[in-house]
Amino acid sequence: MIPRYTPADFAALWSSKTRYDSWLDVELAACDAMEEAGLVPVGTARSIRGKQLALDPDRIDTIERTVKHDVIAFLTHVEELAGEEARWLHRGMTSSDVLDTSLALLLVRASDLLLTRISKLIDALALRADEHRKTPMIGRSHGIHAEPVTFGVVLAGHLAEMKRGRARLVAARAEIAVGKIAGAVGTYAHLSPAIEASALASMGLSAETVSTQVVARDRHAAFFTALAVVAAGIERFATNVRHFQRTEVGEAEERFTKGQKGSSAMPHKRNPIVSENLCGLARIVRAAALPALEDVALWHERDISHSSVERIIAPDATTALGYMLERSAAMVEGLVVYPDALRRNLDRTHELFFSEAVLLALVHKGSARQKAYEAVQRCAMKTIAGEGRFRDLLAEDAEIAALLGVDEIDRAFDLDHALAHTGTIIDRAIAAD
Amino acid sequence: MIPRYTPADFAALWSSKTRYDSWLDVELAACDAMEEAGLVPVGTARSIRGKQLALDPDRIDTIERTVKHDVIAFLTHVEELAGEEARWLHRGMTSSDVLDTSLALLLVRASDLLLTRISKLIDALALRADEHRKTPMIGRSHGIHAEPVTFGVVLAGHLAEMKRGRARLVAARAEIAVGKIAGAVGTYAHLSPAIEASALASMGLSAETVSTQVVARDRHAAFFTALAVVAAGIERFATNVRHFQRTEVGEAEERFTKGQKGSSAMPHKRNPIVSENLCGLARIVRAAALPALEDVALWHERDISHSSVERIIAPDATTALGYMLERSAAMVEGLVVYPDALRRNLDRTHELFFSEAVLLALVHKGSARQKAYEAVQRCAMKTIAGEGRFRDLLAEDAEIAALLGVDEIDRAFDLDHALAHTGTIIDRAIAAD
Amino acid sequence: MIPRYTPADFAALWSSKTRYDSWLDVELAACDAMEEAGLVPVGTARSIRGKQLALDPDRIDTIERTVKHDVIAFLTHVEELAGEEARWLHRGMTSSDVLDTSLALLLVRASDLLLTRISKLIDALALRADEHRKTPMIGRSHGIHAEPVTFGVVLAGHLAEMKRGRARLVAARAEIAVGKIAGAVGTYAHLSPAIEASALASMGLSAETVSTQVVARDRHAAFFTALAVVAAGIERFATNVRHFQRTEVGEAEERFTKGQKGSSAMPHKRNPIVSENLCGLARIVRAAALPALEDVALWHERDISHSSVERIIAPDATTALGYMLERSAAMVEGLVVYPDALRRNLDRTHELFFSEAVLLALVHKGSARQKAYEAVQRCAMKTIAGEGRFRDLLAEDAEIAALLGVDEIDRAFDLDHALAHTGTIIDRAIAAD
Amino acid sequence: MIPRYTPADFAALWSSKTRYDSWLDVELAACDAMEEAGLVPVGTARSIRGKQLALDPDRIDTIERTVKHDVIAFLTHVEELAGEEARWLHRGMTSSDVLDTSLALLLVRASDLLLTRISKLIDALALRADEHRKTPMIGRSHGIHAEPVTFGVVLAGHLAEMKRGRARLVAARAEIAVGKIAGAVGTYAHLSPAIEASALASMGLSAETVSTQVVARDRHAAFFTALAVVAAGIERFATNVRHFQRTEVGEAEERFTKGQKGSSAMPHKRNPIVSENLCGLARIVRAAALPALEDVALWHERDISHSSVERIIAPDATTALGYMLERSAAMVEGLVVYPDALRRNLDRTHELFFSEAVLLALVHKGSARQKAYEAVQRCAMKTIAGEGRFRDLLAEDAEIAALLGVDEIDRAFDLDHALAHTGTIIDRAIAAD
Repeated sequence: MIPRYTPADFAALWSSKTRYDSWLDVELAACDAMEEAGLVPVGTARSIRGKQLALDPDRIDTIERTVKHDVIAFLTHVEELAGEEARWLHRGMTSSDVLDTSLALLLVRASDLLLTRISKLIDALALRADEHRKTPMIGRSHGIHAEPVTFGVVLAGHLAEMKRGRARLVAARAEIAVGKIAGAVGTYAHLSPAIEASALASMGLSAETVSTQVVARDRHAAFFTALAVVAAGIERFATNVRHFQRTEVGEAEERFTKGQKGSSAMPHKRNPIVSENLCGLARIVRAAALPALEDVALWHERDISHSSVERIIAPDATTALGYMLERSAAMVEGLVVYPDALRRNLDRTHELFFSEAVLLALVHKGSARQKAYEAVQRCAMKTIAGEGRFRDLLAEDAEIAALLGVDEIDRAFDLDHALAHTGTIIDRAIAAD
Repeated sequence: MIPRYTPADFAALWSSKTRYDSWLDVELAACDAMEEAGLVPVGTARSIRGKQLALDPDRIDTIERTVKHDVIAFLTHVEELAGEEARWLHRGMTSSDVLDTSLALLLVRASDLLLTRISKLIDALALRADEHRKTPMIGRSHGIHAEPVTFGVVLAGHLAEMKRGRARLVAARAEIAVGKIAGAVGTYAHLSPAIEASALASMGLSAETVSTQVVARDRHAAFFTALAVVAAGIERFATNVRHFQRTEVGEAEERFTKGQKGSSAMPHKRNPIVSENLCGLARIVRAAALPALEDVALWHERDISHSSVERIIAPDATTALGYMLERSAAMVEGLVVYPDALRRNLDRTHELFFSEAVLLALVHKGSARQKAYEAVQRCAMKTIAGEGRFRDLLAEDAEIAALLGVDEIDRAFDLDHALAHTGTIIDRAIAAD
Repeated sequence: MIPRYTPADFAALWSSKTRYDSWLDVELAACDAMEEAGLVPVGTARSIRGKQLALDPDRIDTIERTVKHDVIAFLTHVEELAGEEARWLHRGMTSSDVLDTSLALLLVRASDLLLTRISKLIDALALRADEHRKTPMIGRSHGIHAEPVTFGVVLAGHLAEMKRGRARLVAARAEIAVGKIAGAVGTYAHLSPAIEASALASMGLSAETVSTQVVARDRHAAFFTALAVVAAGIERFATNVRHFQRTEVGEAEERFTKGQKGSSAMPHKRNPIVSENLCGLARIVRAAALPALEDVALWHERDISHSSVERIIAPDATTALGYMLERSAAMVEGLVVYPDALRRNLDRTHELFFSEAVLLALVHKGSARQKAYEAVQRCAMKTIAGEGRFRDLLAEDAEIAALLGVDEIDRAFDLDHALAHTGTIIDRAIAAD
Repeated sequence: MIPRYTPADFAALWSSKTRYDSWLDVELAACDAMEEAGLVPVGTARSIRGKQLALDPDRIDTIERTVKHDVIAFLTHVEELAGEEARWLHRGMTSSDVLDTSLALLLVRASDLLLTRISKLIDALALRADEHRKTPMIGRSHGIHAEPVTFGVVLAGHLAEMKRGRARLVAARAEIAVGKIAGAVGTYAHLSPAIEASALASMGLSAETVSTQVVARDRHAAFFTALAVVAAGIERFATNVRHFQRTEVGEAEERFTKGQKGSSAMPHKRNPIVSENLCGLARIVRAAALPALEDVALWHERDISHSSVERIIAPDATTALGYMLERSAAMVEGLVVYPDALRRNLDRTHELFFSEAVLLALVHKGSARQKAYEAVQRCAMKTIAGEGRFRDLLAEDAEIAALLGVDEIDRAFDLDHALAHTGTIIDRAIAAD
């Protein structure tokens, strides 16, 4: 991922240094387990750990240019630094034992970074949903005014979605917290299931049920598609913020900081650039799901076509989502909400949104549903055409007047009734896991 | 989905008739709940159910051409058939209450059809994995001979993946077993959470935490991406069958039935058409994940852009996967395995696959790992070049001979040792959930 | 494609009957060419044509269930109907000669249906762009009011894009107007380049440069990605219509027909359902690009994994796009534009959009650009905050007043100047190819 | 793109320095044109050019952190360096005039880097196709032996595809060689079409027909989908190389360099890692097509959601494809072909591939096609089952013997006849544009 969208912790996580360090962790964890099993002299891992090897990524790259194999280059470098004992490392193992287990470690850490961030976003959404639990506004379907909601309910919807997102990330983490120390084709030819279990457990991982040369890639596909679903949820939120900030809507806007400039040409501009950015990055995270799905069908015990893909999408998709979550949380916290504008828009359609209440009152009084519908629609269309106030037109409509008196019509025009359950909904979102 | 790939039960599930029937089920379940709540006269739903309405999809289509709204057309038709009482239906509800709850019902049923099929595939894989637990073959990485496995282990890998697939389908089913009877913008303006809970429970569904006008689409995105991951697992299996059946490999092939013809030009052909078909259909199921992800970011309380997408991908992706699972199970059951060919290929590289055992023996005797590697590689490359038997060349290599005697070399050439843990692996796959 | 989105001509094009008829056309065209070449008795094709075979798709399906090969089933059926002479058909050919050439014919016809429709859309856009060439409105970037445009310019932008779309469809048509009569592996083993050229030319096709068993699939990938780009252009237009129709914007809306109903719950609703539908279908056409791209990498001389994909996406993507183009054209023709609303929105920001003109005047008078920017931004932000009229605030700002007099400020507030070139732009779009 | 897959020229092209330099180029080209038009004092651009500004990306980043706008930060920095005259830069322009025109310049340069590379790949394929024009091998469909081809024909197929790829890149280059100097919403409010035309022409670009705030994004979608199609063509080639190198096939392999190691566990391995890498990267380039397609539907005169996408995919997709083309060319040049193995595999099916010739001879002698097919298939299946030599079984089959004598059967077994047209095919590929 480009530096612009890379938080510092993700930059560190996906650095060469961290990668090689985690390879060494895997080798030493496996070595420990092999010592227990009597395959390697006791104390080997401890001794190498004691040397605190300062792995040099550049040196490894240099070796790789000759051997054309990254793990062999790494092992050669470890032998250079650790000396003769290093020959016990990697015993009976294949590169993928190191690479896939290391990838699991790194993706687990990436998941943890994501989980911390999504929890912050969840907290921010919960706070603002609660703050605006009684701020009425017009709900919209098809972009057209529908019936009233509250700003708190809107945020609660995103809150509930992000909680589902957190659950997806937890599940995704579990999917890929799976390593493999099972040798060339996963048969433990020179190892054993017990060695694998012990080595992986020491790193917080479990073992693949059936390895080939690699951990099965349906796990990674599930991981990256989960990220894509979470990113799509952020995209939905960001899209709505962009709508709120539209000039004609003006209900809420992103914090505009001191010194900020909206346009190089137009000094009057204040643009929802954060939410637009989030929409773009959602496309990037979504796009990563595809090659991850295409990676599943490796040939026989494995081919290495997934490797280049993962070198790119593992840092890119996790980093982009991390950045998105972080930025979303800040956006929620700083979101400037305009209750007056919300109210003004609510009032814009002159109470047309009570049309359903009138419809139901007519049905209750015995009207057939579609007949009632047409009567109310008739009055609504006149109101839209500027031919009068909705309440008055309803009262003047012979068909409606035959069933409903003015009082009964007025009773249908009740905002409190329309919003009576919104508190329950918000509480439900706040209480959800 | 085109008829060619549509099993009969999926054709029935996604017919207009089933759809409209399920809409009526939703309306009546909601009516029941509103009767309990005192909003609708007791007995309304029972009375309408008693009329056993024969909904006519063509009539609904005709009405829709005028009103341009499918649910209104449906309700108008229900009024035609059920008479005056029908006015109580849909009270306080919006179209999406019906549509989304119905979609949940249909996707749940589709999930059940998929689960039955994947279980058959799992059973077939388990049976064949057990059958071939001791059939040795060469494992391959990069398409190149690596070290021995058994055919049973290979099938066990697919078995374990399909069991994960089943778990994904179970989770996906739970994701979308969620309906919504919450009115125009999800606020229960003329309903209540209790009515919704009661109505949905009677249909085996739970309620959306926070509805907008619709059930949140991240659920459906998760559903369709789960199908894509399962399809990718089948693609992996089918790809391997295609490899096994290659003329040069010839280790297994799809059942070739009496009367079958392989090519219009070449009477000698027997092609792996089932597994190729599965690979193609995996692309179709994968492709459906994308619009499902793009559907998440609906505007405000909803826009209807997801509707056309779901009308297409809901039947298409579930049907294609249903067909794939069914065809995969039959392919596994009928797969003709050639143990002789497996053995012949295993022997093709003249025991080169014992190279790792020799390497480990050298390391055990004190050689540095990379030095040992180069010695063994040297002998292997000579064998590949036809300059002698691998065992002999190893014995003749001065550097190796200095550490290993002929007996020790011979001990490294032990197939039983290489396969000692394969039974455990297969048992693990069979025992897994 | 489901019937809901299938125009009648696409239904006919992609019927079984049309497919089998086109197979027969290919066989007979090849037969003609082989007669010329002396490989088949002269008059064979004419004689079979004379029999006007009534191919029965159901009968072919029945045969296919035994032989498991569609072209062989077809040929068997042709032999049933045409008798002994039919043995000369398919001489030296392979199934893909028939299938791929037929696919080319069908995709060419689909392209022609698309081209007719996109030309109608183009005509409609040109007409409406011209109609509204002087209807001023506010342009928006980031959803925020920017500077004035005209409604005609907006439509001209979509017009120019659709003209590019037409050029893409023309290019896509050329890409797939390529057949193949080259035998089992494309070597003309029992045919010749001359036979192929003659047969294809008679059907308006050219020959693949190098066939394998099939026409190369990069052509089809290019075809389907071209459809996706065109669909994305329609998505852009539809997205804008949805914006115009938003309640708060209200600048234009889709025609609302007599009897139409917007919502089952809310009689007052008029929704942009056509443009929402177009956005959804754009996702479907886009999704088809992916499996088309994945189909390219067929194994060796071909594998058949592309077949199931194309059986699905060829009708689906072309039909969906055909429907989209048709519906878009009708939407453009029927679009109800509200010049008053356009003007009202233009005026909503109290002339803030002249900020750039003021900025330029300041620079012209010697101010540094960023200094001028800050001065103008300062006044703009005050206007937004309701602290006064933009012109007045500018005149009162000491820094600005030092450089610009009231007259000079007023001169910057000139709508005609801002729109002076819009006619040229529209003319350019109308004149473009 | 990660350094591993980034050729040096792409690293330079997509550096911050190059980007900012190209922004300055655009500003100065526009300034030149405005000088001609009398809007800016003559000599301004020349004077600023003369100062040879050393733009400092870090300084620009620092400013951006306050103003949150990249182009404003850039302009501020230019004012710092160039002094008072710089106020004439960007006159009447908007950021996107700079950004989109600069993006066009960079993508044009990227296209040129790609074109150079694909031409090298084309040259390499042409050379090797010619070299192996008469090297016979078995063609395969479905992975199953079909009929003979030559290795030259196989390469010629890839050659023809890459030539189409080159044409696609040329077209893609033309698509995005389009800039925009048209102001805030594309109306030339303070500019003119003539200024734009002059400025763009000086940079080798043409003008967008109708700009909004930006150049229309269907162009970029077409660009990135074109890259994806080319990448898919490389994927096809790489997939075939992987097949050739399979242990059981062994017909060709990637050059294995001195010192190279195939596996950390198995010293005997030589893996097709280049072609596997190419397959993985093809997925990455393909994935970039999606967000590019999703970027098209910008809101109104533009939203900025495309920006983050393009910051990522423009360097990533062009670099990945550049790397792929470069690596492919080297792979073709170094490909080790084994004619003996090709011949051995050809002979493996004991002349079964002459089955079609026998079939045609039978039809020629008056047999019905499907009857002849069954007779030949019968003998072929016996041969596969090891029951005799194909020729002999044909001669012994009563039904066949009734029509064909031994001589006539022998005449059908003619490799030269089967390959007679392959030279023509190869020449056609070499001669193609």
